[in-house]
Amino acid sequence: MTSAPFSRGEYDRRLASTRAAMQAAGLDALFVTDPSNQAWLTGYDGWSFYVHQGVIIPPSGEPIWWGRHMDMLGGRRTCWMAQDNILGYGDHYVQSTQVHPMQDLAQTLKERGLDRGRIGVEMENYYYSAKAHEVLSTELSSTRLIDATGLVNWQRLVKSDAEIGFIRKAARISEKVTQVALERAEPGVRKNDLVADIIHAGITGIGDDWGDYPAIVPLTPSGLDATAAHLTWDGTPMRAGEATFFELSGCYRRYHAPLCRTIYLGTPPDEMRRAEAAQIEGIAAGLEAARAGNRTCDIANAFMAIMAKHGIERSGRMGYPVGLSYPPDWGERTASIRNEDETVLQPGMVFHFMPALWMDSWGLETTETIVIAPEGPAQPLCDIERKLFVKA
Amino acid sequence: MTSAPFSRGEYDRRLASTRAAMQAAGLDALFVTDPSNQAWLTGYDGWSFYVHQGVIIPPSGEPIWWGRHMDMLGGRRTCWMAQDNILGYGDHYVQSTQVHPMQDLAQTLKERGLDRGRIGVEMENYYYSAKAHEVLSTELSSTRLIDATGLVNWQRLVKSDAEIGFIRKAARISEKVTQVALERAEPGVRKNDLVADIIHAGITGIGDDWGDYPAIVPLTPSGLDATAAHLTWDGTPMRAGEATFFELSGCYRRYHAPLCRTIYLGTPPDEMRRAEAAQIEGIAAGLEAARAGNRTCDIANAFMAIMAKHGIERSGRMGYPVGLSYPPDWGERTASIRNEDETVLQPGMVFHFMPALWMDSWGLETTETIVIAPEGPAQPLCDIERKLFVKA
Repeated sequence: MTSAPFSRGEYDRRLASTRAAMQAAGLDALFVTDPSNQAWLTGYDGWSFYVHQGVIIPPSGEPIWWGRHMDMLGGRRTCWMAQDNILGYGDHYVQSTQVHPMQDLAQTLKERGLDRGRIGVEMENYYYSAKAHEVLSTELSSTRLIDATGLVNWQRLVKSDAEIGFIRKAARISEKVTQVALERAEPGVRKNDLVADIIHAGITGIGDDWGDYPAIVPLTPSGLDATAAHLTWDGTPMRAGEATFFELSGCYRRYHAPLCRTIYLGTPPDEMRRAEAAQIEGIAAGLEAARAGNRTCDIANAFMAIMAKHGIERSGRMGYPVGLSYPPDWGERTASIRNEDETVLQPGMVFHFMPALWMDSWGLETTETIVIAPEGPAQPLCDIERKLFVKA
Repeated sequence: MTSAPFSRGEYDRRLASTRAAMQAAGLDALFVTDPSNQAWLTGYDGWSFYVHQGVIIPPSGEPIWWGRHMDMLGGRRTCWMAQDNILGYGDHYVQSTQVHPMQDLAQTLKERGLDRGRIGVEMENYYYSAKAHEVLSTELSSTRLIDATGLVNWQRLVKSDAEIGFIRKAARISEKVTQVALERAEPGVRKNDLVADIIHAGITGIGDDWGDYPAIVPLTPSGLDATAAHLTWDGTPMRAGEATFFELSGCYRRYHAPLCRTIYLGTPPDEMRRAEAAQIEGIAAGLEAARAGNRTCDIANAFMAIMAKHGIERSGRMGYPVGLSYPPDWGERTASIRNEDETVLQPGMVFHFMPALWMDSWGLETTETIVIAPEGPAQPLCDIERKLFVKA
């Protein structure tokens, strides 16, 4: 196992920006449960987020990683902090109906004098349950727990050069897995066999850039299943006369660069060809609008304007920031590329621009992971032709 | 996409047992967020649990699946219920800071007259956030939200014959992936390349029994990393003089049969050989104790007695029920095989009996997925020799 992937200077910068946001929110301390935020701040990396764990950010000094005793050992092998800032609780707390790990956390905060004032918690996160909040609130009766959902996530929105380097490596892997999917797809191939090859290519990686597990499994639905966005594979063979979309991402040391392409086996219907043309024109318009100083809604509006011109209705969300992520989602859960979002674009922001079309009888996903440039339109990070692929 | 994997009779039985538990807990309705519970009750299957969704169990009639509009379409393709019992909310609710999907859920409950009395919610679940609970509590001010964590999970503890059939298919895949890992492991092989082969074998499956994604990625740490339980792979080549454990599971239509084996490249140290002998003897004692009518703690105590005899200290949790699961955990989060758990064993219960040893400088994982038999000791579902594998 290699240790924390970034320099100490980078972690210091992240901690400083988090503390500035804490100060702006009037927080005396912060308890971070989002595994992506934990890794971003400390380097912690392990499949242990299914039990309670988190990072305490005190007003000064190093962050403190806190989790199950056996995962503390993993913390000591992956975090950059001193060993005594990596704490473990006993196994009897795990999935018990008698005691709760948040009792141990409360005790830890008390011992360090962090149980006073306003402590931020991530109310809207998979790994901070309603029960965890209830127990922590009860245990820390003289503390005010403040919703700090997204506080760290927003600090992650503009990527450092080192992070963009990681995302570019993920993008090379995304290209590779997409090529494998497009090459292997043909009538008679079982979907699970195709997915096995996709994942194999992704985890093999490219040269020294070994592949990590993406935060979402390959999504590869065909035909009517492709009208629903999130169905996973089964053992059914691919058939002629159907479109299949591939929603995939390479992953390099937890960093992602999602990419979607669609393939039609046979001759696509005219309406799909028209949608393809509109979608490609719309993506180009979106990239043009994705400039530093513009807003996220400008990207969505540019795309929707082209759709409207072609008589296609498309509303809703068309993208989200990506980077460091753990299951179950590779989005960063801050800005959205959608009509009502006015986040101002800055150089170094990375988005999965995802203007998929899900129609009554088929789905057409063509997307790009893009980085906002200092000047000019956004740059797609993957280089795979932007079109509906067809295999007759 | 194939539709719900079990018969209507099986779903009716599950619903009836859930309703009996609801009645015992004095609940007028139940809102289920655990994806495993959702799938167990309705057949719903999709990688959409990263947004708010759930199943409403009213006092009578069919369950109601509720989620994001685009996932409602997936619900219509995977659930057994009538289409008008599969509901979707608008995309503007997704990851918004202005509105919350629980507002839509509250409205849905009101429209159906389910906003009165006592509604059960799963307070301790990844997919029911502190924020979700806060919003739902505010919106349903005349309703009492009652913690019903585990209510459905406990109904899942004794498996039907159909479910055990699925788990046996998963077990065949577990054997296959473990064999691949043991065969491929040798000095110089990069860990990520090994993992790529493991996953490829698992998703390919066996014959018509195609492989689904396990709820946990392959865990394959070596040497000191194996002293920490949950580190994932990197691109480092395997080395002579190190033990590596493989914690893997096949997955057949979301059902799991986890299996762990350990391999040493070179000549294992004597203390590891002694631990191996103790562990194997302890597992045999555990299987003997794993009989209908005994308790989960009897399994743990039988194992620990053997360890004590050999001078090895091992406390904590040594297993958990397994079956239908979604990320991030393949455990069912009810009973535990540990000293303080007194769950009475019944035929058809399935556990991952997991008496791993994590020592100061190495880890030794040898485990079995077992089914409690009507008579006699528990049966391991996988057939892989129980030993420390060695490749000189």
